[in-house]
Amino acid sequence: MKKCSVNFNTIDTPAVLIDRDIAERNIFRFQEYCVEKGLTLRPHIKTHKLVELAQLQITAGAVGINCQKLGEAEVMAAHCIDDILITYNIIGAVKLARLTSLAKKVRKLSVTADSAFTLQGLSATFEQAPKPLNVLVECDTGGQRCGVQTPDAAVELAKQISKAPGLTFNGLMTYPAKGGTTAVQVFMSSAERLLRACGISCPTISSGGSPDMWQAHEAPIVTEYRVGTYIYNDRSLVAGGICGLEDCALSVLTTVVSVPAIGRAIIDAGSKALSSDLLGLNGYGHIVGHPELQIVKLSEEHGHLEYPVELSPLKIGQRLRVIPNHACAVSNLFDNVMLLRNGAFEKIVPVAARGCNT
Amino acid sequence: MKKCSVNFNTIDTPAVLIDRDIAERNIFRFQEYCVEKGLTLRPHIKTHKLVELAQLQITAGAVGINCQKLGEAEVMAAHCIDDILITYNIIGAVKLARLTSLAKKVRKLSVTADSAFTLQGLSATFEQAPKPLNVLVECDTGGQRCGVQTPDAAVELAKQISKAPGLTFNGLMTYPAKGGTTAVQVFMSSAERLLRACGISCPTISSGGSPDMWQAHEAPIVTEYRVGTYIYNDRSLVAGGICGLEDCALSVLTTVVSVPAIGRAIIDAGSKALSSDLLGLNGYGHIVGHPELQIVKLSEEHGHLEYPVELSPLKIGQRLRVIPNHACAVSNLFDNVMLLRNGAFEKIVPVAARGCNT
Repeated sequence: MKKCSVNFNTIDTPAVLIDRDIAERNIFRFQEYCVEKGLTLRPHIKTHKLVELAQLQITAGAVGINCQKLGEAEVMAAHCIDDILITYNIIGAVKLARLTSLAKKVRKLSVTADSAFTLQGLSATFEQAPKPLNVLVECDTGGQRCGVQTPDAAVELAKQISKAPGLTFNGLMTYPAKGGTTAVQVFMSSAERLLRACGISCPTISSGGSPDMWQAHEAPIVTEYRVGTYIYNDRSLVAGGICGLEDCALSVLTTVVSVPAIGRAIIDAGSKALSSDLLGLNGYGHIVGHPELQIVKLSEEHGHLEYPVELSPLKIGQRLRVIPNHACAVSNLFDNVMLLRNGAFEKIVPVAARGCNT
Repeated sequence: MKKCSVNFNTIDTPAVLIDRDIAERNIFRFQEYCVEKGLTLRPHIKTHKLVELAQLQITAGAVGINCQKLGEAEVMAAHCIDDILITYNIIGAVKLARLTSLAKKVRKLSVTADSAFTLQGLSATFEQAPKPLNVLVECDTGGQRCGVQTPDAAVELAKQISKAPGLTFNGLMTYPAKGGTTAVQVFMSSAERLLRACGISCPTISSGGSPDMWQAHEAPIVTEYRVGTYIYNDRSLVAGGICGLEDCALSVLTTVVSVPAIGRAIIDAGSKALSSDLLGLNGYGHIVGHPELQIVKLSEEHGHLEYPVELSPLKIGQRLRVIPNHACAVSNLFDNVMLLRNGAFEKIVPVAARGCNT
């Protein structure tokens, strides 16, 4: 992480700092990769939840955005983002009514589905709509979350979509397991072949995930890639070799509030600031410039640091910057973040789509 | 958990439901215990973060409230809560300025400190204030978070507070380790004896924690007990034998959005609804009425359920209620909660102090 001229002592803590230069570099770098590999890029805004960065991702060349929640999409649509894919089974009367309102506000709205149940709800809702809803079939290529289990099942749902009033079949979508690029290629090639045999065209094959983003081209069947964390990066992606610490745009500024004993200190960032997400790592974050400090435990509002007893104790009042294990979870815990530009404070922006749970 | 006449199918999910009757019963039950044992009760509002429930706790007999963050205290003070203890080292110019503003708005404001550094900041800020700030010395009785390490160190800080302009020594405070009631009694008795020998009176000895709340009287030196989770209870307290499932007031209503394979289902409550807090438990929550279902994994917006393959599959669209591992973390993830009364929907209330990170 580069040097920064911001006077951290004047900022109330804990606070989320976003180095906008690093975020932009991350956006442009992967956009360039996608252009080079012939992939359409559709960033997932769950990581930042900021209108401004979503707009920047589109300006940089993204085809549109990906949301997980209808509420996130509503916020983004209200700010002129006009191509939105919600990678979720939208179920229930309340959500379906919201989906029809949303469809009227954007140029292109797409959702995913992995069951006839979901399709029936979507079709019943959109059969009278002014334009059809784009639906992609979600496929489980090894991630074991949502998704149909076989290429045959994907084709079966694609047929149902093609016949359903109010719906348009827009392709196949998967969120693969880590290291699952080959599995994506195998599943999707097979499904695409079967679709072709049925005379169903498949405009989009969408895959995603930051952990394998630099291998995206190794599944050439894929036409669109969705990626969220890449904009900020975090300790989990550094550990996975996807980026370096210098590529991490989000950090949590925190204050040492207690040095109760030799080799121990307490910071004012706990699980309500850093989240409890471990993502398979030891400890709850990397402290910039202090590899000797370990965040060994989190209470709700306290982070518990340990360091070798032979080192000088930390100073109460001292500020530290933490690169969290999981940037997306941190964004969701703060109402506002501070943008830095050229190493200086730029402005505070609201995390507009934070807490959009439904 | 009792039967409920609410039509869950009309509620958009995920949603936090608060059974107000259970919450009230929990409030009154522990208030009664404290009265019987001669303890002052000071509930920690971090669990619910709701103005209305804080007011109810006070109406039921609590002396005031406990907050962890200045921001929480500011919200509560704006709603006429006039006796607030912030159990935190308040450090830094921004927070100290906020603390003086807050002091003008409440009848009694108290904070804790465990270092000369914290005291110097408090004293410099309050020496010109219209009334002194109450300060308790935080003691580490085994919890290994903040706190002075010995009774002698506690007395040393108490002396400094007594002499410091703008401050009043208000007593000793600890957040003990689980099972640490005896350690509290030993530490605090020793500190209180030393204080008496120095001629320093100790108005309050404050301990706390829901996991040992029913043993609070076994440390008779303690005058005040602070407890947060007791109002809602959660799966961790059920596992600890503190309460039964029927005493859990908070649940997360969720919808089954996918049944991708035999023995697996996906719900729309992930780590951004249930939190990743495990608190030493297996799985991420108890599904009311379905002990056969395990929440084995959370993605951000998906909960991964598993159940024995010989059972009937869950139905897509089906609603489930989850008692989370850690109620406090869930409250912090939702802007609003739904109050239920007599098994019926009462109203939606904002989680007023949610996200008050600073």
